[in-house]
Amino acid sequence: MDRRDFNHRMAAALASALAAGQLAAQTQPSGGPPASADKPAANPDHDMSKFPASWTGKEQIAMLVYPGFTALDLAGPQYMFGSLMGATVHIVAKTLEPVKSDTGLVVMPSITFDECPKELDFIFAPGGTQGTLDAIKDDATMAFMADRGSRAKYVTSVCTGSLLIGAAGLLKGYRATSHWATHDLLPQVGAIPVKARVVRDRNRITGAGVTAGIDFGLQILEMQRDREYAQSIQLIAEYAPAPHLNAGTTRTAPRKVTSMMREMFSGFTRTASRTLKDAMSRPPPRT
Amino acid sequence: MDRRDFNHRMAAALASALAAGQLAAQTQPSGGPPASADKPAANPDHDMSKFPASWTGKEQIAMLVYPGFTALDLAGPQYMFGSLMGATVHIVAKTLEPVKSDTGLVVMPSITFDECPKELDFIFAPGGTQGTLDAIKDDATMAFMADRGSRAKYVTSVCTGSLLIGAAGLLKGYRATSHWATHDLLPQVGAIPVKARVVRDRNRITGAGVTAGIDFGLQILEMQRDREYAQSIQLIAEYAPAPHLNAGTTRTAPRKVTSMMREMFSGFTRTASRTLKDAMSRPPPRT
Repeated sequence: MDRRDFNHRMAAALASALAAGQLAAQTQPSGGPPASADKPAANPDHDMSKFPASWTGKEQIAMLVYPGFTALDLAGPQYMFGSLMGATVHIVAKTLEPVKSDTGLVVMPSITFDECPKELDFIFAPGGTQGTLDAIKDDATMAFMADRGSRAKYVTSVCTGSLLIGAAGLLKGYRATSHWATHDLLPQVGAIPVKARVVRDRNRITGAGVTAGIDFGLQILEMQRDREYAQSIQLIAEYAPAPHLNAGTTRTAPRKVTSMMREMFSGFTRTASRTLKDAMSRPPPRT
Repeated sequence: MDRRDFNHRMAAALASALAAGQLAAQTQPSGGPPASADKPAANPDHDMSKFPASWTGKEQIAMLVYPGFTALDLAGPQYMFGSLMGATVHIVAKTLEPVKSDTGLVVMPSITFDECPKELDFIFAPGGTQGTLDAIKDDATMAFMADRGSRAKYVTSVCTGSLLIGAAGLLKGYRATSHWATHDLLPQVGAIPVKARVVRDRNRITGAGVTAGIDFGLQILEMQRDREYAQSIQLIAEYAPAPHLNAGTTRTAPRKVTSMMREMFSGFTRTASRTLKDAMSRPPPRT
């Protein structure tokens, strides 16, 4: 079998597995919710043992959820992390109770802080508005993030999640990004603000607001596997975005929209600033 | 107060409400899950009663979930529907048990088929792979979709969700789109396939694969409110996508990736075709 055949077979097996839903992120059997879905039946046309070692990983990934998190901040990266063949993706929260997002979508954690593996490849925090500030004020959440973040291979966030990991002491001296409304607050947690959709500095990877999580996840796919793997998942996700409006940044939105939104987020931004000031003046949280 | 002041105040109130999480989609109190999140406290700086009537709706929106649905197909549109001030967004399933998506994320339905309002403004179906075909084979799901779809103001889907609404008899004679791997199957449900990211034909609105749901949702925001409203939400979602790869369509992906993915989805596509053939030859489902 030459290299071309080899690649071809790899991709074939990958695509079949994706089509059959077999690359679904695994959740810990213990502590997991009673999912009503059975795993789709294995596709008899292919054999998982044919996967080359380099396309299968064994990442342990923990994605934090807390009341008021933004569901889309989570779902974009979760799609990408969940497409990492062999990885285990944990949805981690303080308890196993359902967690309501800021748009009302309710998700089930798969494990609690206590049950979460100590050594993670990725720890991830989604953003939100008031819910994120409440999470920053919560000692158990901060202690968990500080502990796992101090040992994780990569510490990551999307949107205002960077304030959360920053408040846990994980962005000191690192370049990072955040939602535009809170970008200027990054120095309060010791981070160096960079205006970009995805910022990687050593083992810190932060995404900008909400939908930046998809770009963030796609970059991680290439980083953890290879370019063709990432391209394959991009094609499966049909990620060729085409918004009919061009108001996604403070620069491209009509000046009126930008100035109104800036002005009106100012209350939240002020509250966030106070919350960060308080958080950074407290002794570091401990588990 | 002149028009400019009026618009300004509107947007101010909107943005404050968004920042405070007050535009979160409402779920029915009865039948809803025990969410661990309390609603964020109201922002005392503004008064909801200041919203102009035209920016507040009262849409009843039902988003279907079923085992093996794609979470990102749901989360993109749910972000947008959930930003429609005044709307009620139901996450509807056969039972109130947690529903596991194809990437392992578990969501909680807010109501069952029986509890779902009869008259809806929007009925929405996300896609998936084998899970979607299983849903098409499920009489209760098809009867529910056929019933609500026959009376809803808009019948909508993202990704392979168009096969599902099509199998429920809701796309006959309508132009529609789907995930690229199943696009050619649309005529099997009587639809007229159109290669586009979002297709609207009268009161049917369908999106292409997975991430097209965000473009789909943004268009609906403008349709249901106005352009400035949609631009404001686009800015809040920081939806200025910038994938670092360009493999999101079968045309732009490297030829090798496209042909491998096409070939390898062919098994799923064949199974989907058989499932649709069976579904269309059965008598129409009834509630």
